Amino acid sequence: MPHIEVNNDFAGIRSLMAFRPETAEPLALLADILLRDEEGLSRAERELIATRVSYLNDCFYCHHSHGELACVYLDGNRELVDKVRKDYQHADISDKLKALLTIASKVQESGKAVQPEDIAAARDAGATDKDIHDTVLIAAAFCLYNRYVDGLGATTPTDISTYGPRARQVAERGYGSHIYSTGQPVR
Amino acid sequence: MPHIEVNNDFAGIRSLMAFRPETAEPLALLADILLRDEEGLSRAERELIATRVSYLNDCFYCHHSHGELACVYLDGNRELVDKVRKDYQHADISDKLKALLTIASKVQESGKAVQPEDIAAARDAGATDKDIHDTVLIAAAFCLYNRYVDGLGATTPTDISTYGPRARQVAERGYGSHIYSTGQPVR
Repeated sequence: MPHIEVNNDFAGIRSLMAFRPETAEPLALLADILLRDEEGLSRAERELIATRVSYLNDCFYCHHSHGELACVYLDGNRELVDKVRKDYQHADISDKLKALLTIASKVQESGKAVQPEDIAAARDAGATDKDIHDTVLIAAAFCLYNRYVDGLGATTPTDISTYGPRARQVAERGYGSHIYSTGQPVR
Repeated sequence: MPHIEVNNDFAGIRSLMAFRPETAEPLALLADILLRDEEGLSRAERELIATRVSYLNDCFYCHHSHGELACVYLDGNRELVDKVRKDYQHADISDKLKALLTIASKVQESGKAVQPEDIAAARDAGATDKDIHDTVLIAAAFCLYNRYVDGLGATTPTDISTYGPRARQVAERGYGSHIYSTGQPVR
């Protein structure tokens, strides 16, 4: 049960966003920009970074929500998503994405953990300034989203199969910043 | 020197926001709502929560920026701000704010660290659901802002006296979400 009376039956972060739509708008807008931009990093790569950081933060709701999203973009390759989540250094992904996941994993710990050599390794593997910026901000953003969900004890479905339908909806329509900004009901 | 070429001479988070104005808009909007709303928690209380979390995350730029803001709202009582930063349990603040700072300090560690008894203590001291929501989200948001600033190695002035002028500007005009959303230059 959530720590506050959310007065709705949504799960996870959506229950909190419906409780406080004013803050939902920037939170959804940030997700729409960071996770759906396709310049530099693909949507699959962005969701994999989100999944890895949420896994490190032990946020069940977020690492399954975003893991399912990554899975949608990767034509159902759940095995790859799970390898990135737990052991990305040995996953079948580019050296560039591995270097960015190293930066993201350090950001999860602390901003100060990122070292010049981590940045240099990402650049050597082909990462641009924008790729590095977006990686750090995605990782930092999930340190927010994960704490928001678990810090308020948001309802977290334990049946993993229930995460698929919402993931397909988000892949199609986005995170809903357009909905929150119009003040329409959050459905 | 920042890890990426920001191509501007702003300090801290502003240098990153000028580098990527698309993400600056939701980041500024979130700060404007969470830190300038005056319902339930005062602006001083909101900035004190931000200062405490940024201090725990060891983000020099953020804990001084927001500490100065709190100081502006507290008529220059820098001693109180510093007490809250380092030892809030013995600071001259309300029991409600102490209970909320306990929640915020736990969120800094992990969302899962917040226990039902922490919530109950805040309620007993007069906190509403919205106060608790905003406290958790402010703490979570500073786990983003702090990591964004330090994860990209943003320029951090070490002369504390330089933080005052910007703090007075923000107290007067806000965090600038209106500026970013119009696409105007970021000055």
